[in-house]
Order: sequence, then structure tokens, then C-alpha cells
Amino acid sequence: MKKRKGLLIILDGLGDRPIKEFGGKTPLEYAKTPNMDKLAKLGILGQQDPIKPGQPAGSDTAHLSIFGYDPYKVYRGRGFLEALGVGLDLDEDDLAFRVNFATIENGIITDRRAGRISTEEAHELAKAIQENVKLPVDFIFVGATGHRAVLVLKGMAKGYRVGENDPHEAGKPPHRFTWEDEESKRVAEILEEFVRQAHEVLERHPINEKRRKEGKPVANYLLIRGAGTYPDIPMKFTEQWKVRAGAVIAVSLVKGVARAIGFDVYTPEGATGEYNTDEMAKAKKTVELLKEYDFVFLHFKPTDAAGHDNNPKLKAEMIEKADRMIGYIIEHINLEDVVIAITGDHSTPCEVMNHSGDPVPLLIVGGGVRPDHTESFGERECMRGGLGRIRGHDIVPVMMDLMNRSEKFGA
Amino acid sequence: MKKRKGLLIILDGLGDRPIKEFGGKTPLEYAKTPNMDKLAKLGILGQQDPIKPGQPAGSDTAHLSIFGYDPYKVYRGRGFLEALGVGLDLDEDDLAFRVNFATIENGIITDRRAGRISTEEAHELAKAIQENVKLPVDFIFVGATGHRAVLVLKGMAKGYRVGENDPHEAGKPPHRFTWEDEESKRVAEILEEFVRQAHEVLERHPINEKRRKEGKPVANYLLIRGAGTYPDIPMKFTEQWKVRAGAVIAVSLVKGVARAIGFDVYTPEGATGEYNTDEMAKAKKTVELLKEYDFVFLHFKPTDAAGHDNNPKLKAEMIEKADRMIGYIIEHINLEDVVIAITGDHSTPCEVMNHSGDPVPLLIVGGGVRPDHTESFGERECMRGGLGRIRGHDIVPVMMDLMNRSEKFGA
Repeated sequence: MKKRKGLLIILDGLGDRPIKEFGGKTPLEYAKTPNMDKLAKLGILGQQDPIKPGQPAGSDTAHLSIFGYDPYKVYRGRGFLEALGVGLDLDEDDLAFRVNFATIENGIITDRRAGRISTEEAHELAKAIQENVKLPVDFIFVGATGHRAVLVLKGMAKGYRVGENDPHEAGKPPHRFTWEDEESKRVAEILEEFVRQAHEVLERHPINEKRRKEGKPVANYLLIRGAGTYPDIPMKFTEQWKVRAGAVIAVSLVKGVARAIGFDVYTPEGATGEYNTDEMAKAKKTVELLKEYDFVFLHFKPTDAAGHDNNPKLKAEMIEKADRMIGYIIEHINLEDVVIAITGDHSTPCEVMNHSGDPVPLLIVGGGVRPDHTESFGERECMRGGLGRIRGHDIVPVMMDLMNRSEKFGA
Repeated sequence: MKKRKGLLIILDGLGDRPIKEFGGKTPLEYAKTPNMDKLAKLGILGQQDPIKPGQPAGSDTAHLSIFGYDPYKVYRGRGFLEALGVGLDLDEDDLAFRVNFATIENGIITDRRAGRISTEEAHELAKAIQENVKLPVDFIFVGATGHRAVLVLKGMAKGYRVGENDPHEAGKPPHRFTWEDEESKRVAEILEEFVRQAHEVLERHPINEKRRKEGKPVANYLLIRGAGTYPDIPMKFTEQWKVRAGAVIAVSLVKGVARAIGFDVYTPEGATGEYNTDEMAKAKKTVELLKEYDFVFLHFKPTDAAGHDNNPKLKAEMIEKADRMIGYIIEHINLEDVVIAITGDHSTPCEVMNHSGDPVPLLIVGGGVRPDHTESFGERECMRGGLGRIRGHDIVPVMMDLMNRSEKFGA
């Protein structure tokens, strides 16, 4: 029995709802995707609920679920996964947060993402904060992707029951940090002090002076949320399935999930996790890894961002970009030797501008797959696909089985 | 992001099996339902298992499951829900039963529903029983809908392990009440005494003398079953989903479920829960409530009764009646602003003359819904619907997600 290799491609936030300007089609149905359509004809389609029907999933909980973990049991907050994702080597008693660079004017948050400042700017600003802010505990503050950053308070894990200062919409003042017990009260106080000092550092930083002159939103405030501690992973993916696993990812949070479950993570040059990401660099890296690893995970972010920005046209363009990436990959592998699954971690419908609980289109193709009658990759076509409606945590077992790497239960 | 309203329409006992005289069609497939067919074209179909595949559900357990509760955990017997449904204000230590007025002749039950006596007759008879029967404990006995009534034994909740006297088919004598422990033995003795005295009161009641003269089955006996105590609802529906919820219901049992989970319950004049129910009164009330409430539940009973009576033609007629009710509603709302789900609480196939474990047709339509390829509302068409096959407890999360009222788990 030939063991096949596996390739899981997650187009973040892929699923959507009908778009009026597309005549009721979704961005995936509207986009020109000759490569995925070809794979749909060769393979089998279906719908998957990342966690369960109707339950909107975060990117972290959805990925955990798709990789076979019960997020209700293992999840301990996004901050920690984000911190693992930027490559920090953390301790069991660390407390981690996700941070947005934001714009504040007269006490009001005017942009929660500081005009989506670049990764380079964010890293530079984070460096200045790390050097100049003085706290009563050790901390690590580093830039992640785009306007995102990570804060780690060393040894403060017990204070994880702390709130956030993010008002979650522009036009409002930042919140005060809340707490639920004495240890998290201490953390709340440290965070208030951190935000105060960081604001001072940011206000006078040359990058912001330059942005101000150029009329761009300045990154002069920090919004902190998602307190997290070490996820409670019972067994690494690589051990459970006895595979060598590599991943191509640009986004810190998803890197964090992959690292926590045993993947070697690669970010080729040009892979930014933003609209400008170099999809060909990711495609090439993926083909490379498929030679070396048994299981490869390729994550593509911009589809999700376009949903959050309520930009259906851009989402369709990003799907076409992903299709080119997939086109390169299938030209450079033998489909008979690989099982490919293409899906999203969740739906991010433009009308919702956030994750929804809609099921997500799923395509499985490659050696051993029983093809169905479907003709193209899209939400409606997936409804009549041969995979039916399954759960996120079913995807990897189905792949591993087609890869001839599953173990029989019973005799 | 626009929050939508939700309307859940339950056509009780909707699902059925192929009917020979309909050329193998089910009553739903045979009935002329232009309004539901229109909604099927605009929306998405599927099948739902109220509890799990193949498991026949009661109306109470099914509704609990559809509203998101695990009936295996929260259910404490039908009697109590029925008692809440007739508007009784009960105590934690009360024991409640559902009661049928029945016909007995020479010790044999000849009609388990006393010729489906009217609600008015039943209420009158119940009053006579309450006034004339003397028991060693306080009790409440009131008429519900049609031949149904409710008995509450005050302070006797610990004796809930008591059987029933209902033989469940005509042509048999009533059973003796069984018991499992000393406390329920006491209850069994009280019930025997109650049935004996009530029989005397009923035999000589003017209503029965009149029925006897008219050649109608007399309501001269009580069949008692469904011992129940307070349901163990962990959190009300309205709290869990942070919605104001209103319901249009005629049947006590379903009212009881709705009240127990936080709905404001309305029964417009003319809504009887019987074949003669005024569907337009229900439709109008529903449209009214949709202005005031975030979530509205509309329950329609006669479809179930026709299944119990093994009357496919009548079941089809009742489905057509429901279709007119739905037609009025959709003419008076904006479908883009509402998410409507239409289904049954269970199947009541005519051939079974009772609830079955067949999956139930499900239609979801309104703002945000991804339409599938289906053309009409019926069992077979639902099999190829885009919702696939889901569980009863998935329905509300799917609706709330489309209503943009769900909370993301994770980040």
C-alpha cells in the first residue's frame, strides 16, 4: 500500500454569503478559478463546519479544530498562539497578549489598525517601546504582521482573567482593563502603565512624525486583548499521525498554532499575509516542502482580510491570486501521489465583516479520491458535493485515510 | 453589521412517509404550497434530526432540543411542561401529569380522546372534578386544549417514579398505576382514588348526558400519564442569545416549553391547536410580534393531529392551511431583514399514527442565506438541499448566525 503525501491549503475566511453586485454569487463563485475548478472536477466537494453548525470560529480555534483538537478543551486564548507565532520561546508561566497599533485623537480611537501600518514600521515602533518602557515585571514586546504585535508578561500567567482596552470599533475611547481576581488586577495595573508609557514613546517617534506629515493615521496607541497562556495540547499532530509536517505561513497567529502542534514553519521572502503577499513564493516553498515532508500545510491570509474589509471585488481578486498559487503547485506535483484538501478556516462574509458560522467550502482531490459530479469550486456547488456536510475535525482523518496513513480501530 | 430578526415556524409532526394514494408522495409533497415553494427557491433546504437519527422525539423533548437544550439532561417529564403551558404557577416540589378525557364502556377504553371533545366541554368537566373530588393532598385539575387536561399534586414531586393508567390503545382496560418506591406508591394510591371519584363525577355530568343523547362518545374517564417535575433549564433562551422572544402557540405543552425558556407566549383568539384553528389570526399575531421582538416562534399543531389520525388527505389540507398562514406573513415583512426557518418538531407519519424518528424537512430563508438548487418544499427535495443533514439543536445557532447575533469563539 502506497503512502501518499498530504497538502492542506487553508484560504483564510474563504466562505461568504450572496453578494448583490455579483448577482447573488459569492466571491468564490464569482472569481475566475480555473485551477480549483479543474480540481473540483477531478475530486470531491463538500461543506465543513469548523467547530459546529452556526458557530462562528476564531482563526485560532478553527485551526485547532481542523487539526483535530477540541478547541473547547485545548484553547487558552489567542495571545499565546500569536506569541508562539512570532517565534518567541515562552515559558509555562508566561502571559501573552495580542496587540494592535492604533490611532488615538483627543482620547478617541479613530483607527483600530493605525491605517494598517506596514510590518517594518510596526517592528521599528515595537523596538522603541521595548527599549524605553519600564515595568515592574519583565516583558517582551515585538511586532508581528502588519499592525499586529505581541506582548508577553513574564511569569504572570495566573493573572489571565484580565479584560481588554480595545473598544472594538472606531469612534470610541479605549476601555479600562477589567479584572476578575487579585492576580489579574495586578496585571490590569501593569497593562494600564504599559499603555500609558507606550503612548508617550509612540507620540514622539520619527515614524509617526513622518506619517503625520504624509497625512497618514499615526500609530500612537496600543489596543491590548486576548490574554492567553500555554495551550493544552495533549499530543502533537506530528506524533499523533506519525508524520513529518511542514507549513508555509506568514501570519503569526497561525504560525503559533502550527508550531504548538509540531509543524516546522516557513515564511518565504515576499509572503506577507497582506494583500501584496507573493503567492508564487508560497507556491514554490510548498512544492519544495512536499519533497521533504509527509504533510504540508499552506496558509493564505488575504481572502479573510478582504471579507473583514467588506470588499467583495478584492476578495474575488485574492481568491484568483490563491488560484494561481494552487495552479503552480499542481503543475509541479503528481496528483496521484498527493492528497490535497482546499478549504477555509471559517467563513468571513463581506456583509458580516467578521467571521460567521456559515459552513465552509471544502475540496479534496488526489490519489484515492472518489470523484463526485461537481464541476467547479463554490459554495453552491459544494452543497451538492459527495463529501456532504462534515466537521472541521473530520478533514485531517479523511486526508490521512486517503494517504493510507490511518490506523485501523478493531481487527 | 445589520442584526436581523428571527422567525422559527414549527409545523408540528410535519414529516411523513410515502402515501400510496398520493402515488408515493408524502402529504407535504402532495399538498399545494405555493408560498413555501417560493421560499424554497429563495432559500436553502435540508433535513434535521430533532434529537438524533432514528430517534422518535416527543413534542416536548423535540422542542427542547430545537431550542438548544439537551433533552437527556433537562427533561423531567411532559406533565410539568403541560401544566406550565396552561398558565399554572407551580412550585419546585409539585408533581404534574398530563391527562386525557377518555370514553370507558364496561371497563374497556373505547376512545382515548372521548371523540376529541371541545376545549369548552373539557374545561367545564374539569371544573366539576376540581370542585367535587376530595383527596388527602391539595391538587389542581384544569382543562388544556381539546381533550387534554392537567393534574398537579401539590408537594408530591418525590413520588415521580409512578406509572400510568393509559393503555395507549382503544379496546383495552385502563392499567393500574405502578410505582417504584414508597413515595411513588403513595402517589399511585392517590391517583387511583382520583380516577375513581372523577369517573363518578363525569358519569352524571350534564355535558355527558347531552353527548350520550347525541350519540357522541362520552368523556367519562381520565387517562393519566407523563409524571413530571420542574425542568432543569440551565439558562433561558432569551438570556443565552440576548434576545427578546415572543411566541404564538395554542397548545399547552408547547406553551409550557416556551414559557420555561423565557418566551412571552400569545394565543390569539381563534387559535385552537385543532383542525379548525384560525391560521390567519396566528399569521397576524406573528407579524405583530416581529415588530416588537427579536425572535418569534410560531407553532402550528393540526399537521401533527392528522398524522396521529392516519388521515393523509387532512394532513395535506392542514399543510395547505399552514402555507396560507406563511403566505400572509411573508407578504407583510421584508425577507432581507428576517431569517425564517420552517420545519417540524418531528415526523408524524400517517402509517405510524405516532411520532417517528424520520428526519424532518427544514427550510431556511431570508437575509444572508446562501440559496441552493432546490425548487419546492418536500421530503425528497430536502434530501438534496444545501443544508445537508443537521441536528435539531443546530437550527437556532444557524439562524442566529444568519441574524448576525452569534458570538465568535476564539479570535
